[in-house]
Amino acid sequence: MQQCSGKMWSCITDFFTYETTKSVVVKSWTIGIINRVVQLLIITYFIGWVFLYEKAYQVRDTAIESSVMTKVKGFGEYNNRIMDVADYVTPTQGASVFCVITKLITTENQVQGYCPESDLKLKCNSDVDCKKLMSKPSSNGLLTGRCVPFNTNQKTCEIKGWCPAEIDEIQPNPMMEVENFTIFIKNSIRFPRFNFTKGNFLPNIKSSYIKQCNFDFETNMYCPIFKVGDVIRFAQQDFTTLAKKGGVIGIKIAWLCDLDKADDECKPTYSFTRLDAMSAKTTVSPGYNFRYAKYFQMENGTEYRTLLKAYAIRFDVLVNGDAGKFDMIPTLINMVAAFTSVGVGTVLCDIILLNFLKGADQYKAKKFEEVSNSHVQSSNSLYRSRDHSEHSIKTDEKFFTDSGAFSIERYS
Amino acid sequence: MQQCSGKMWSCITDFFTYETTKSVVVKSWTIGIINRVVQLLIITYFIGWVFLYEKAYQVRDTAIESSVMTKVKGFGEYNNRIMDVADYVTPTQGASVFCVITKLITTENQVQGYCPESDLKLKCNSDVDCKKLMSKPSSNGLLTGRCVPFNTNQKTCEIKGWCPAEIDEIQPNPMMEVENFTIFIKNSIRFPRFNFTKGNFLPNIKSSYIKQCNFDFETNMYCPIFKVGDVIRFAQQDFTTLAKKGGVIGIKIAWLCDLDKADDECKPTYSFTRLDAMSAKTTVSPGYNFRYAKYFQMENGTEYRTLLKAYAIRFDVLVNGDAGKFDMIPTLINMVAAFTSVGVGTVLCDIILLNFLKGADQYKAKKFEEVSNSHVQSSNSLYRSRDHSEHSIKTDEKFFTDSGAFSIERYS
Amino acid sequence: MQQCSGKMWSCITDFFTYETTKSVVVKSWTIGIINRVVQLLIITYFIGWVFLYEKAYQVRDTAIESSVMTKVKGFGEYNNRIMDVADYVTPTQGASVFCVITKLITTENQVQGYCPESDLKLKCNSDVDCKKLMSKPSSNGLLTGRCVPFNTNQKTCEIKGWCPAEIDEIQPNPMMEVENFTIFIKNSIRFPRFNFTKGNFLPNIKSSYIKQCNFDFETNMYCPIFKVGDVIRFAQQDFTTLAKKGGVIGIKIAWLCDLDKADDECKPTYSFTRLDAMSAKTTVSPGYNFRYAKYFQMENGTEYRTLLKAYAIRFDVLVNGDAGKFDMIPTLINMVAAFTSVGVGTVLCDIILLNFLKGADQYKAKKFEEVSNSHVQSSNSLYRSRDHSEHSIKTDEKFFTDSGAFSIERYS
Repeated sequence: MQQCSGKMWSCITDFFTYETTKSVVVKSWTIGIINRVVQLLIITYFIGWVFLYEKAYQVRDTAIESSVMTKVKGFGEYNNRIMDVADYVTPTQGASVFCVITKLITTENQVQGYCPESDLKLKCNSDVDCKKLMSKPSSNGLLTGRCVPFNTNQKTCEIKGWCPAEIDEIQPNPMMEVENFTIFIKNSIRFPRFNFTKGNFLPNIKSSYIKQCNFDFETNMYCPIFKVGDVIRFAQQDFTTLAKKGGVIGIKIAWLCDLDKADDECKPTYSFTRLDAMSAKTTVSPGYNFRYAKYFQMENGTEYRTLLKAYAIRFDVLVNGDAGKFDMIPTLINMVAAFTSVGVGTVLCDIILLNFLKGADQYKAKKFEEVSNSHVQSSNSLYRSRDHSEHSIKTDEKFFTDSGAFSIERYS
Repeated sequence: MQQCSGKMWSCITDFFTYETTKSVVVKSWTIGIINRVVQLLIITYFIGWVFLYEKAYQVRDTAIESSVMTKVKGFGEYNNRIMDVADYVTPTQGASVFCVITKLITTENQVQGYCPESDLKLKCNSDVDCKKLMSKPSSNGLLTGRCVPFNTNQKTCEIKGWCPAEIDEIQPNPMMEVENFTIFIKNSIRFPRFNFTKGNFLPNIKSSYIKQCNFDFETNMYCPIFKVGDVIRFAQQDFTTLAKKGGVIGIKIAWLCDLDKADDECKPTYSFTRLDAMSAKTTVSPGYNFRYAKYFQMENGTEYRTLLKAYAIRFDVLVNGDAGKFDMIPTLINMVAAFTSVGVGTVLCDIILLNFLKGADQYKAKKFEEVSNSHVQSSNSLYRSRDHSEHSIKTDEKFFTDSGAFSIERYS
Repeated sequence: MQQCSGKMWSCITDFFTYETTKSVVVKSWTIGIINRVVQLLIITYFIGWVFLYEKAYQVRDTAIESSVMTKVKGFGEYNNRIMDVADYVTPTQGASVFCVITKLITTENQVQGYCPESDLKLKCNSDVDCKKLMSKPSSNGLLTGRCVPFNTNQKTCEIKGWCPAEIDEIQPNPMMEVENFTIFIKNSIRFPRFNFTKGNFLPNIKSSYIKQCNFDFETNMYCPIFKVGDVIRFAQQDFTTLAKKGGVIGIKIAWLCDLDKADDECKPTYSFTRLDAMSAKTTVSPGYNFRYAKYFQMENGTEYRTLLKAYAIRFDVLVNGDAGKFDMIPTLINMVAAFTSVGVGTVLCDIILLNFLKGADQYKAKKFEEVSNSHVQSSNSLYRSRDHSEHSIKTDEKFFTDSGAFSIERYS
């Protein structure tokens, strides 16, 4: 550029030139058809896959904002008590993750004190046995090192803690009514990029329909009320096994929306899966359970509690979304990509043309012009250099005899 | 490559050659200016959009690690009781999702037993009515099939369960003091890729400032204390409606950080939105409420409970982050992409040059050299083939008369 | 295309032609070696980085489905009480986020009523002082505007609310046994795209091993039981400080799986970090604590409660996954990208060839053919135009004397 100072005008004229590649047009049916077929395949790929299937002309938003509310309904009978939502659902807030308790091991009237351990792994004959076990973790409290009678036949180590100790060996039956409980899911979503808001109560759904519908995959695909038994069946699980051991079920709501279409076309799709799938396969700690306590106080101020070991089915409502809408920028970028990709076919055609086609040598001679270092050094003028190079094309035939693989690197 | 064995040296000299396209330089003001303008547009796009706006020279990290702690403060008066945090916030852990209870329907002293249903949909005249309804789900317990007096005027079906049944028809007023409650949010984030840690207590914020500030969008953009009323107003909602029916509000914290700048430039931006936006539009199950119970025991061991139906405003604190930092690899890749993209302009210019410009035919003749199948087959030497092809350029003018659209495919 | 009607056949022959660029082959050791070295670098980059390191031949799935269950074990002694899981873990459900309480400030037997504020910032001498403070937020209840004796020496403003007011100035010692508590984590994952399910109980782990192992980074990398003290040490924190003030620890489980290998190779990697890292640095509200209450009722129906201010260590189990599996489509796309990228080296080589190499002018003359506007206008026939343009190459030498930077734009 610095060379330009002083001869401004010629510089400007030089700058405003246009340079394009010199091309060789091969009039051959074979290569012509191959060329067009390859181009057609590439164009078909772009139109069919990139544009129509992957909708490359749209901007996408997957950062969905979602809010889930849930409500379980149903009554069960357990331990001669009628259980309602406040009893068997935890946490109670009706958020996207909630547990429905199916089985309870209840230990009532626990107070702080000393009592024999209930875990029969801590059987003992004398205090010596228990002193040995003190370094090990116990199940229900801190070991005192004494051996005390657990029942008329057995002695176990004494613990300090909440007494009496929980006995979780006895396995009561689960509450089978859970199968008929219903889960009501209210899901509002928003695609912030498009400021598009929608809920899983579709506008055409009536209040009367919601009061009596139950979700299924055939006729009630948009009913927001799910029977627990159905959900478990859709996740290919057995209710009785799950109710006994506990487990985690995922209820997935997918919002795949093409916002170029009418708003009504944007609908949720539900799917169901067991999230703790490995629990079913392993024998180590299968299922899902947890302990919690209800605390009470006597008139004299002594605290006591009811310890509950709950086996539960946990439901996780997982929402994901992917919305697309036409936008100029990705359309342009992908059109440019499509056009330039059409040129990729040339690589393949060149290999065929220069190696496998009848008269390949002539095509090579036409395509390549050679200029060698020696010509440059020996020539005094551009005129002569040019003459030489033209000669060299004619004579350096051996040059063009390499294989296709070799050509790929060179011609791409 | 196999052809090389035996004549090694000539193969090596052939391999170390350099091949470049032969170009035609068009000295025309029209096309020259178009060419440069197109190139300028492409370069401007890359520098302006790709590099400066989208910061393509940076590696990005969006997998933010975030920890949110919240604390609500304030006192309200409800049912002649002063409510504090432990009473109206649930869950109590101060995590990123919490509910502030605004309205409570309390049913005290429920015990397991038999009582008339409170839901007037279950009105009856005789046991026959109730036997018919037994298959249907009831509201407050299991139907026994008997018809019992609910009050002096009406009879309803009897239920077995927690008695007396909840009456949720009466709608008490919400606790209006919630509007003045404050939410304190402590948010720590980390971008693991850059090992960059920051909190929403900016270093220049003083302890004395935090004790008395309230967030707003003008002067207290970085105050981590939010008035409930403000948050609801920022989300364009009406407090009274929300307090009556309940709802879900999202408090979004965005960390968009350019880590090439000083650390102090990396600041949170807060935004507010109603997450269950559809609740406001639909009449089916509007708002947000849930039931929970407090359990008590009498001296004789009988359990009783207080059932609470709570209408609440749920706050979800959602954190997202996107940090970028200069890195060599994306810079190089995007610079190469920019340079190669400049060549795309040639496609447009070729169409203009070969179709619309004065003297287009001459340009075509210059750009294209033709070699046809027939020449190859008839010619005995390269010399003649070359002559032929040069003739064919001059005579095959019709070839170059196709339209621009056609040219696009061919020249790209 | 419309020009084709009427002369169909010639159109078709014209269409089925193949066009390839005319190339100049430079036989020069210098540029030849540079060219091949540049191509080698590009190929090495693609094979080494893109294919081997970034595994571009695979489709990836990062939308992992995960389910986490946790169980804490251990007993602590606090305030002369033995604390078990039901006492110190909250929420109790054993989900991915849980708090282990390390310190409790207990205020027992609170009832609704009037009492002096415990916060000494609300000291007063007379009712006038308290009336002034009424607009300000108080700590434990609504201010009544009266000044009452707090103890024998001091007077504070009276509050209406839960009485007596909590005194949180006294800081008891934390429960040090927490350091030896164990956290058991059960994590099931699924990559939905590949329908691949796995758990963190690897198949080769035996039930007997799990009963006695503790995670460490050397020999027990896959043991799903973590000692609280170890986790805190791995996160580079001090247990005593954390137990006193509370904090949030992240337990991250990463599943980086190459599903082209055997299923057994897909293993979890654990890492530990303090999520609320900023808490340690700032003096404003350090640590993590929250308040909750246990509610009781007297025989006469009066409700009273025990208020607890809990300092806790919160554990967030965060799961992320990234699985890859061979797929044809990304392999093809990336191979095409690799081949076309090899051509990018030409840009660099052209700059060297046309500017810095001995005999650059001759190469330029060979590479560029010129056709200028003036020739086109003056010439009557294609023959003459062609002659002119060949002359112009020879004479317009000045054109090719611009700098490399300039060339970049033109030749790319």
